[in-house]
Amino acid sequence: MSDKFHDECGVVGVFNHPEAANLVYLGLYALQHRGQESAGIASNENGKMFLEVGMGLVADVFRRDRLTKVPGNTAIGHNRYSTAGQSHLKNAQPCLINYSDGSMSLAHNGNLVNADTLRRELVSTGSIFQSTNDSEVIVHLMAQAEGKSFIDRAAAALGQVKGAYSLILMSENEILAARDPHGFRPLCLGKINGAWVVSSESCVFDLIEAEYIREIEPGEILQIDKDGIRSFFPFPKAPMKKCVFEHIYFARPDSFIFNENVYSIRKAMGKAMAQESLVDADLVIPVPDSGVLSAMGFAEEAKLPFEMGLIRNHYVGRTFIEPQSQIRHFGVKVKLNAVRQILKGKRIIVVDDSIVRGTTSRKIVKMLFDAGAKEVHVRISSPPILHSCFYGIDTPTKNELIGSTHTVEKIREYLNADSLVYLSQERLLSVMKNGENEYCTACFDGNYPVPLVDKELETSQLGLFNEKQPAD
Amino acid sequence: MSDKFHDECGVVGVFNHPEAANLVYLGLYALQHRGQESAGIASNENGKMFLEVGMGLVADVFRRDRLTKVPGNTAIGHNRYSTAGQSHLKNAQPCLINYSDGSMSLAHNGNLVNADTLRRELVSTGSIFQSTNDSEVIVHLMAQAEGKSFIDRAAAALGQVKGAYSLILMSENEILAARDPHGFRPLCLGKINGAWVVSSESCVFDLIEAEYIREIEPGEILQIDKDGIRSFFPFPKAPMKKCVFEHIYFARPDSFIFNENVYSIRKAMGKAMAQESLVDADLVIPVPDSGVLSAMGFAEEAKLPFEMGLIRNHYVGRTFIEPQSQIRHFGVKVKLNAVRQILKGKRIIVVDDSIVRGTTSRKIVKMLFDAGAKEVHVRISSPPILHSCFYGIDTPTKNELIGSTHTVEKIREYLNADSLVYLSQERLLSVMKNGENEYCTACFDGNYPVPLVDKELETSQLGLFNEKQPAD
Amino acid sequence: MSDKFHDECGVVGVFNHPEAANLVYLGLYALQHRGQESAGIASNENGKMFLEVGMGLVADVFRRDRLTKVPGNTAIGHNRYSTAGQSHLKNAQPCLINYSDGSMSLAHNGNLVNADTLRRELVSTGSIFQSTNDSEVIVHLMAQAEGKSFIDRAAAALGQVKGAYSLILMSENEILAARDPHGFRPLCLGKINGAWVVSSESCVFDLIEAEYIREIEPGEILQIDKDGIRSFFPFPKAPMKKCVFEHIYFARPDSFIFNENVYSIRKAMGKAMAQESLVDADLVIPVPDSGVLSAMGFAEEAKLPFEMGLIRNHYVGRTFIEPQSQIRHFGVKVKLNAVRQILKGKRIIVVDDSIVRGTTSRKIVKMLFDAGAKEVHVRISSPPILHSCFYGIDTPTKNELIGSTHTVEKIREYLNADSLVYLSQERLLSVMKNGENEYCTACFDGNYPVPLVDKELETSQLGLFNEKQPAD
Amino acid sequence: MSDKFHDECGVVGVFNHPEAANLVYLGLYALQHRGQESAGIASNENGKMFLEVGMGLVADVFRRDRLTKVPGNTAIGHNRYSTAGQSHLKNAQPCLINYSDGSMSLAHNGNLVNADTLRRELVSTGSIFQSTNDSEVIVHLMAQAEGKSFIDRAAAALGQVKGAYSLILMSENEILAARDPHGFRPLCLGKINGAWVVSSESCVFDLIEAEYIREIEPGEILQIDKDGIRSFFPFPKAPMKKCVFEHIYFARPDSFIFNENVYSIRKAMGKAMAQESLVDADLVIPVPDSGVLSAMGFAEEAKLPFEMGLIRNHYVGRTFIEPQSQIRHFGVKVKLNAVRQILKGKRIIVVDDSIVRGTTSRKIVKMLFDAGAKEVHVRISSPPILHSCFYGIDTPTKNELIGSTHTVEKIREYLNADSLVYLSQERLLSVMKNGENEYCTACFDGNYPVPLVDKELETSQLGLFNEKQPAD
Repeated sequence: MSDKFHDECGVVGVFNHPEAANLVYLGLYALQHRGQESAGIASNENGKMFLEVGMGLVADVFRRDRLTKVPGNTAIGHNRYSTAGQSHLKNAQPCLINYSDGSMSLAHNGNLVNADTLRRELVSTGSIFQSTNDSEVIVHLMAQAEGKSFIDRAAAALGQVKGAYSLILMSENEILAARDPHGFRPLCLGKINGAWVVSSESCVFDLIEAEYIREIEPGEILQIDKDGIRSFFPFPKAPMKKCVFEHIYFARPDSFIFNENVYSIRKAMGKAMAQESLVDADLVIPVPDSGVLSAMGFAEEAKLPFEMGLIRNHYVGRTFIEPQSQIRHFGVKVKLNAVRQILKGKRIIVVDDSIVRGTTSRKIVKMLFDAGAKEVHVRISSPPILHSCFYGIDTPTKNELIGSTHTVEKIREYLNADSLVYLSQERLLSVMKNGENEYCTACFDGNYPVPLVDKELETSQLGLFNEKQPAD
Repeated sequence: MSDKFHDECGVVGVFNHPEAANLVYLGLYALQHRGQESAGIASNENGKMFLEVGMGLVADVFRRDRLTKVPGNTAIGHNRYSTAGQSHLKNAQPCLINYSDGSMSLAHNGNLVNADTLRRELVSTGSIFQSTNDSEVIVHLMAQAEGKSFIDRAAAALGQVKGAYSLILMSENEILAARDPHGFRPLCLGKINGAWVVSSESCVFDLIEAEYIREIEPGEILQIDKDGIRSFFPFPKAPMKKCVFEHIYFARPDSFIFNENVYSIRKAMGKAMAQESLVDADLVIPVPDSGVLSAMGFAEEAKLPFEMGLIRNHYVGRTFIEPQSQIRHFGVKVKLNAVRQILKGKRIIVVDDSIVRGTTSRKIVKMLFDAGAKEVHVRISSPPILHSCFYGIDTPTKNELIGSTHTVEKIREYLNADSLVYLSQERLLSVMKNGENEYCTACFDGNYPVPLVDKELETSQLGLFNEKQPAD
Repeated sequence: MSDKFHDECGVVGVFNHPEAANLVYLGLYALQHRGQESAGIASNENGKMFLEVGMGLVADVFRRDRLTKVPGNTAIGHNRYSTAGQSHLKNAQPCLINYSDGSMSLAHNGNLVNADTLRRELVSTGSIFQSTNDSEVIVHLMAQAEGKSFIDRAAAALGQVKGAYSLILMSENEILAARDPHGFRPLCLGKINGAWVVSSESCVFDLIEAEYIREIEPGEILQIDKDGIRSFFPFPKAPMKKCVFEHIYFARPDSFIFNENVYSIRKAMGKAMAQESLVDADLVIPVPDSGVLSAMGFAEEAKLPFEMGLIRNHYVGRTFIEPQSQIRHFGVKVKLNAVRQILKGKRIIVVDDSIVRGTTSRKIVKMLFDAGAKEVHVRISSPPILHSCFYGIDTPTKNELIGSTHTVEKIREYLNADSLVYLSQERLLSVMKNGENEYCTACFDGNYPVPLVDKELETSQLGLFNEKQPAD
Repeated sequence: MSDKFHDECGVVGVFNHPEAANLVYLGLYALQHRGQESAGIASNENGKMFLEVGMGLVADVFRRDRLTKVPGNTAIGHNRYSTAGQSHLKNAQPCLINYSDGSMSLAHNGNLVNADTLRRELVSTGSIFQSTNDSEVIVHLMAQAEGKSFIDRAAAALGQVKGAYSLILMSENEILAARDPHGFRPLCLGKINGAWVVSSESCVFDLIEAEYIREIEPGEILQIDKDGIRSFFPFPKAPMKKCVFEHIYFARPDSFIFNENVYSIRKAMGKAMAQESLVDADLVIPVPDSGVLSAMGFAEEAKLPFEMGLIRNHYVGRTFIEPQSQIRHFGVKVKLNAVRQILKGKRIIVVDDSIVRGTTSRKIVKMLFDAGAKEVHVRISSPPILHSCFYGIDTPTKNELIGSTHTVEKIREYLNADSLVYLSQERLLSVMKNGENEYCTACFDGNYPVPLVDKELETSQLGLFNEKQPAD
């Protein structure tokens, strides 16, 4: 039984800047939405490596003087996503190991589909593992690679792994930024005062006032050392398969990833929805924050009033514990509240980015009716999720996905909504450049661009795939 | 020299509900925006009182089993606002004291203007003080009141204090909810399964599924005990002077206070601004979150596109510590980021609720220009703040208020904006019912409805009023 | 119902030394045995007072930079004793209050017998109380005293309280050290580099390399200010009634208190026991650490071998939590282990200082027999405790005292010991100078030198005296 | 450069008891003296392994419900010794790894002398290391072992390591207890209600009421599984070389290790000292706690009075931080205080177990003279330490050992003592069974029974041996 993590994370690396760790810290701050479970920074001071990791938000992990414990002018950092019940310090990243050429460190965003298979091979020849991270597979493969140089080791190791990775490797005198041949996850290159920065999203560059240079290309390993940057493409070319969910939900709207601005894409999704599924209504409201931009696009296209009919309490954090109580099950009410005066007697179109299990959406519909809405029409800016993601988005197993087990009409009934329309896959992809060809849509249509090696292995052994509980 | 707090806070009370403390906890959660410095709950179990207070957010203070330490079916709670540098546990509320009739507890929102004066009188006759809270003055006055009953003591004590208070008092067999004769701060009454709830704002009732009943009236002391509720008006009638800033900034938009919905008022402010100060522009954007609703109203009225041109990082919390660094002074950039693709080449109207010192606004204007804006027009949904508030809003001293020291044109120059227009006081008040008569506008026009007793005392002694640094 | 504390505590004060708080911190360290529940330091820097208190050991409360928060060249400190279940931060000392003459702070060791009575009077005229400390009564009385000067106020207040106190008061420009007329608790004066130090025990002076000067006299108020020290005796003379338990158990053996060395007294008790109650045996062993010195005295006098037949695990601290377990009730075994090879087949005399409930002694006897002892003879270096202490030693109520409810023979049966002999009161007192006249022996004979005002009050109201559970 | 730890630790294992983790917890408690830096427990519930480790004392690491996180009926635990400045969570034990046969866990006491050499070989073939523990070498060797069974793997791995180890290995269905062929460190077998317990010292059995069965033999691997226990001796027989310092200092006096009672050995050392080095004196006093038993033996043999002339403050813990201060350097005074009334005018023999750097002893001599001693004669219950230990006792490098750099007379001069005599090696060994043959005395005479492989490696590379600062 696998209990590995799906790695939805944020990574940052800074090479040759006197305040490397400080910049990485700020970068992790800007990437906090990509992972709140743990945060860590590894640094390199004249070939000596340091590591500090901890559970929780970046700002909680790096209190007081802890940043001084990661000295040096090169550093890499990592935020891990929170999946319910499986958070262990040993799985926090970056990892830092000793091998025959000294020390190296790795920060990895993505999910490998053959990590378990490779791990079995490695352990069968005597390797030992201390975490359930995919990343530990990569460093093992690197340690055993024949190549003389660090980049040769990286190329040899990454040549064996399959799946999604956008990662940063730090040796004693360089960093490497690598992105898998399909380019599932974003990874960008920036520059600040002559120093190089690598980051999952461009919003990091805005915060630290770095200049956006370009994406790391799919299949590229970019070597950054004192002589500058050099590009390597050691793997066979593969079709681009960027994760469509980065645009739908995951990335920050102010980021520029996959060579497009997330904000604009989201608004365009809203407009496409309005074209596909307009209904006679009085108001368009978003489920905040995820539905705000597509709701704005919808309202604009439909020429309907846009209102913030649901108010979000931003103080709801990880530490909220529902009191043991008869009056429990506040659920989404702790986060959201409906504005009765806006909604009363109105026919409402409520816009969200996706439906996973449906329980939250059902509560929202009830909340709107309770606040006096006359009709509630749910519009979702993506097609139904029918299949689990194995490339790094933390989706539940198929039979927990309401889209996989219910028809749209049955989902509408479950939500008690007057209507429910999902954006079609065709229109969704139409709002992105080359959307039809360059994006992975496996969660909608089951077309997995990389074979699910581990999953087949498990299935062949009658094992069950890891049942994780994502935050809905 | 006074170092007392300005009390912008949230209060909740629940009488006779089996889960009193749990409900108060949830209520404080919903009122977290009114105070993040400390949180506390006092409860009453069969006449025995319990108190738990701590520094920080409600959810941090009441971790694990701490709620079980405030048993009983009656409880009151308090959130305190964070003012820089003056946070002490001893000032956290509720306060719980023993006096001749047993125990009592108090949670207070507002600021008294004669607390120092009363304190001097009290200590001159032998009273001792352990905090710098106004509230300690009130409980001293109650303890010394001649009256036989709790409500008589309360009336006697509150008859002596001047200024703003919306407070909840708990005796061993009742609670009292009291609001000063001018009604500066809001205070509402609700009902849940036959139990009474009192709260600063109505959003509490929505969360715990209580029914909104009415406001506590200015000058009213409402007694809630096993026999039900009884209303007392022991003070001379005074003109209503509700705090206009509750509508402009402080209250939650989903709250219904002062008999109006905050959301609607804020949108109306935006429309009024558009009528007063429209300029030729391409986009209206808010400073999130405070400017969102008025920007929406502005855009709607002006028929201009509304965009979220500034994205807020909601993970920026109290724990963020800027790293010691050459590259420091990220200031507002840690919280806000501009969306270049939306702003580039555009003439922008940016809407916020107020300007205190101007430093943040200046950074925002720069951020917008850096993101490519062609013109930046700043619109503020309230008049310039010229005077300090002594009734409970934490404003800096006059000479730190940019509105007090600079003309509007000079402020515009300082902000480097193409234009700057504040909403006129007349139009602002016009969006509220009886706005002209029933609201306190002292911060705009210096018409303090209650004489500043302590301040005069200090001035006469050549003392300086406490120089606090509010969060801008 | 009273829930006040019995105050067995340690106090330290330093006047006019550049490192006042550091010295107080070290002093509290040396007095840690007198109280582990909470620790606090109040300081005075040019008339401005600072206070830091916390729950736990001195070294835990004052981590990192917290000592820098109590600046100034005068400081007083306090350790509070841990009584089960009643530890609240609000009861931690020193207390620091504001009154008509400014600020003052108090650290108090001892227990007043009329505190409740005085408190009732005070609250009946409008005073409010925030803690259940006796000390709060004293500061109220001082605040209301007519006297012009600080020492006049102190004399007026202390003239009204009855019972045991050894206390240190700090005003804005002096400190006072006061001891009640009977001199129940110790209090010493020392000198370090021209600065004055006051401390519960002389071991503090050893640690900070101060010179022992003398005891504060019973009934003395010693004023220490920039002009030096001055002695006042404002109260009627009373018979000396020093606490015999300080010598038996409470004080450190390396301390010189009540003008005698504790170590020597304890050894003399052991010798007296050997003279009174020698039995044919092979070994004398102590219950460590409390019985070590009297066991040594016993063995020496009896010319029997002395062995450490019970080994104490000094890592057992306050944090030990017995695991929830079938195999629980390790009780004293976690602290003590018997050395089988020493005890096997031997007739053992085991020496301890006292028996409170008897449960621990019973387990020890069992442990000795389990380790192979042939006979176990228990010798106690004090008479049976028949009566509760109301002057500051935390004893349980009478009916929990095994000495009060059982004859010595019944206690022996309960312990399963071969013999049990207590040291007679006469011989106990004989080892101290003027023992017969100058010591309080109320816990043995019920002769309370100060009438138990509060207790009578409670009894007359059919109230029950507070049932506290002391550590056995 | 090596920065590995010298492993002086405590280990406990429990097989097949419903409260395995609880018993291990209590066992670690009893072994707290063997390591205070970190504590950890690994458990096995039906083949699934769990691990909890943390920095600090056992009772601090396992607060609240943490023991519930190590479920199952088999568990092993580990206490690590504190060495200054090198404490990292990643080095805490037990370690828990995944390898080709599943999971295994290891708790190790001792120090390998060829760990660095083996590590180099392992990394040269691609292994990666995450800690600087010797233990990680062992689990790597086991993972790579050809053998089919767990015990075969253990035998293969342990056949390659050299040095000292007493360790417990846990597979998914058994535990192994192994002791190196020389038997440097103790390891005992016990039984509780039919379940097996393994522990560094027998005091663990006393606490949990287990029966002491026997020692694990030098060179033995004891397999414990559901079928019972089986003994294996897979290594060539080697001369017994038990660590003499376990008897001198390290083990608890109530433990029975190396088939002898530590308490009796220590007293016998004292007697031997008296025979070798009696001097005309008035008193014998120990340096508590380490010198207590040998001082008692000395006094008994010399027929001189024994007194506790130095009192130890047992509240001095790891958290004590000397305040930044002019009056700093309290050093040993915070821990020890001299009893003036006992020492004044006396000729004192002060007994301790060893002298490492001499700084503490020097302060103690000064403290005794300051307290009035007329003469101070230092007696040490072991020979001078001339050589570093490489088998698990944390001694400083040779040039920091005062015994290595100074003659006894020069040491006496440094201490300012009237005389200084060490117990001779011959007499020391004479108090143990077969002492001359069965004990390692390398620290006294440099006869290292196992060649120092790593050290030679380092020396040949002109490396410096790791300069650690042991607690004196």
